[in-house]
Amino acid sequence: MISVRDLQLDEQGRLRHFLTVEGLNSEWLHRIMDTAETFGSVRERQVKKVPLLRGKTVVNLFFETSTRTRTTFELAAKRLSADVLNINVAVSATAKGETLLDTIRNLEAMSVDMFVVRHAGSGAAHFIARHVAPHISVINAGDGRHAHPTQALLDMFTIRRHKPEFGPLKVAIVGDILHSRVARSQIHALKALGVTEVRVVAPRTLLPVAVESLGVKPFCDLDRGLEDVDVIIMLRLQKERMEGALLPSEREYYRCYGLTSKRLAKAKPDVLVMHPGPINRGVEISSAVADGRHSVILEQVGHGIAIRMAVMVLAMRSGQ
Amino acid sequence: MISVRDLQLDEQGRLRHFLTVEGLNSEWLHRIMDTAETFGSVRERQVKKVPLLRGKTVVNLFFETSTRTRTTFELAAKRLSADVLNINVAVSATAKGETLLDTIRNLEAMSVDMFVVRHAGSGAAHFIARHVAPHISVINAGDGRHAHPTQALLDMFTIRRHKPEFGPLKVAIVGDILHSRVARSQIHALKALGVTEVRVVAPRTLLPVAVESLGVKPFCDLDRGLEDVDVIIMLRLQKERMEGALLPSEREYYRCYGLTSKRLAKAKPDVLVMHPGPINRGVEISSAVADGRHSVILEQVGHGIAIRMAVMVLAMRSGQ
Amino acid sequence: MISVRDLQLDEQGRLRHFLTVEGLNSEWLHRIMDTAETFGSVRERQVKKVPLLRGKTVVNLFFETSTRTRTTFELAAKRLSADVLNINVAVSATAKGETLLDTIRNLEAMSVDMFVVRHAGSGAAHFIARHVAPHISVINAGDGRHAHPTQALLDMFTIRRHKPEFGPLKVAIVGDILHSRVARSQIHALKALGVTEVRVVAPRTLLPVAVESLGVKPFCDLDRGLEDVDVIIMLRLQKERMEGALLPSEREYYRCYGLTSKRLAKAKPDVLVMHPGPINRGVEISSAVADGRHSVILEQVGHGIAIRMAVMVLAMRSGQ
Repeated sequence: MISVRDLQLDEQGRLRHFLTVEGLNSEWLHRIMDTAETFGSVRERQVKKVPLLRGKTVVNLFFETSTRTRTTFELAAKRLSADVLNINVAVSATAKGETLLDTIRNLEAMSVDMFVVRHAGSGAAHFIARHVAPHISVINAGDGRHAHPTQALLDMFTIRRHKPEFGPLKVAIVGDILHSRVARSQIHALKALGVTEVRVVAPRTLLPVAVESLGVKPFCDLDRGLEDVDVIIMLRLQKERMEGALLPSEREYYRCYGLTSKRLAKAKPDVLVMHPGPINRGVEISSAVADGRHSVILEQVGHGIAIRMAVMVLAMRSGQ
Repeated sequence: MISVRDLQLDEQGRLRHFLTVEGLNSEWLHRIMDTAETFGSVRERQVKKVPLLRGKTVVNLFFETSTRTRTTFELAAKRLSADVLNINVAVSATAKGETLLDTIRNLEAMSVDMFVVRHAGSGAAHFIARHVAPHISVINAGDGRHAHPTQALLDMFTIRRHKPEFGPLKVAIVGDILHSRVARSQIHALKALGVTEVRVVAPRTLLPVAVESLGVKPFCDLDRGLEDVDVIIMLRLQKERMEGALLPSEREYYRCYGLTSKRLAKAKPDVLVMHPGPINRGVEISSAVADGRHSVILEQVGHGIAIRMAVMVLAMRSGQ
Repeated sequence: MISVRDLQLDEQGRLRHFLTVEGLNSEWLHRIMDTAETFGSVRERQVKKVPLLRGKTVVNLFFETSTRTRTTFELAAKRLSADVLNINVAVSATAKGETLLDTIRNLEAMSVDMFVVRHAGSGAAHFIARHVAPHISVINAGDGRHAHPTQALLDMFTIRRHKPEFGPLKVAIVGDILHSRVARSQIHALKALGVTEVRVVAPRTLLPVAVESLGVKPFCDLDRGLEDVDVIIMLRLQKERMEGALLPSEREYYRCYGLTSKRLAKAKPDVLVMHPGPINRGVEISSAVADGRHSVILEQVGHGIAIRMAVMVLAMRSGQ
């Protein structure tokens, strides 16, 4: 069994795939963010394209629909001058692992250069990376409950642009920690970047068992969890969870865990409010906070393009 | 409340958005048509692309499905060398105005440059234009019963290429005037261009109340409505109207309002027959007329690309 | 009635449309394969694009869904630097031939340059080619039970890259010959290229009546059909046939007509195993054979891109 580290970095220590934040050290995370920084200025240009991936074919291989994520990767690829193929694979057609491999083999044979993979199954992107031809890079765009590493990276990038250093920060992640691939990736990234105090705030039913083993402090009370923090990362509430017994009503959830102006006052005066979007106003966050001066939610979206461009460029370089 | 004129033209009097024909004077309409004229020759070239919007991102934001309209805008954008993102937004996801704004804010944050908006609700494109970031232009590709200004412009462009001047023309618009955003936009354009006599011909149930206030002459009898006209603009019959009480059967409609060769003889000998397409043969128009020597229906399609290119280029220039 | 030959080749003997293998002689088939050969090397390049169709618009006009085929044509067109429009036409919208023509006329009027047509009805691509404007080329991407000529050509190309000459070969096509447009096209191509012995192997219910008239040898017994052959072309089993009375169960089919290692031993030692994909493992072919050293199934996919690029370039040249 190849370790994730060996799978993700090649023998020269270059990024070959981007599957997870796990195994990437602080230096690597900063290198990705430094690269993203160079694309930030693209926004100001008249012509927003750079020819770094000209003639390359990027396949958005989505086994799970997500217009939003697909759009950001498509834009990132096009701004790098790549050709983009969008392929939605019905889960039914790939029920057997064998058939998934056949799909991959076929696309490989068409001389494509990169797979951006979104899948409801944890480990799907790793599975594909493990079996893919040497010239192809795999980017994980979210796999099951496991990881969503570009989201975590864009969050780190957003923090880095506002805070002088990661070390002294207190960061609270608030919401459904148990089912969130975003939270998992964020925790790994924050720890790798040396953040001293990472808190997770959620109802007890939405906290993983033995969550402390990840190096985080759990809180069930939002007011206490927010005390004196520098950054608040809200998670999106998956409304379908509401139907099970895991969650009370939306109104009840908002009463206990919704981020309001009053609660925000518990945090540091220059606290950042983040959210991966799309936000549920009045469920996990009030409009006043979402649109308020602490919110960097829309900035995150722009950073998402820059981080995805960075990851694509770094991974593609290795393949050459 | 910002007036439409102020919304559509910027302080330097340049086109910032293209939302409606209302408020654009004859000079403006001719300027758009003059610009379209320069793209007409693109058809004859080996390489049909011009680099005017290279590096720009155009988002086709369709809240209402329309392959045909989406296709013409996509082609127009690609011939201007822009990147195109097609996004179909399920109406359900944007039931609340708030959520529509969040969708817009998110796309803005991805540094896109233009929204081409199609929406079932009247005023949707205006709403978006009113709230959009300063660097973004909005093109209305049809909103509810309100307007479909690029369709009206391409119709004017088609008339201009065949008739020496607008002033002395008699133009008849035939069909479901009441529900037609196309008819509304056409009437505004024809009046702005100085056409003396604009007629609307429809069963009484499909004429708006007090339609005369728009400066048009209503007719319920087709033969009389066509007498001596220079241009006939047929509207597409929305077959779903047939199911209500508003309309008789297709056969009955054709008998009373279908454009046949016999009826065409009432008009001027050099009359133009126009239709926005797709045509319902044997419902609103006979095949003999649709394919006959007076028909410029297919020409209109080509002009549609040129007009959309023109509007995109003019609106994008303002943003720079 | 224009003959297929006259429809497909123009007065200067150049390829104007690519509708069927029928009527193309050995010289023509080799010319297409020679052109494809020049694109084979594209795979090795850093930038995989060539500017041969820059500024041209290719419309994938699919009346029948096929992600796989659509993807290969889209990739081929993009690697030639063309713009691609994907249009899925609901069959209902074109129930009447008249309406299909109106769809075509409209797209023509948008100054597109090529239609890649997929249709459930036999002869659809021919019908369109017969009525299309002079500057437009039509490529048949599969029509009903009639033809799938690019698939046949890529199969010939794959054989040519492995076998020194076509003449002495023995080739067996195995599977549902009766319903297969692929088989029809392959038979025509193999005969045109001078292959002495073309066998078709299938249950009696899946062989066309009087199949010998095509110049092939029918076999109902797979072991005998494979004896001493140089090439085996497996067809994909359309599982929906299973529901009628035409076919036994999958298990029973595999027992009688599945290609296993044991059966493969009947063929020549350097036999090629081909399949148009996607394969049904354990239905028409065993995994050991599909992934084994005789299999060129994935090579075929890559050749599919090269052949489609070749056909597009040759047909577009005529239009100039």
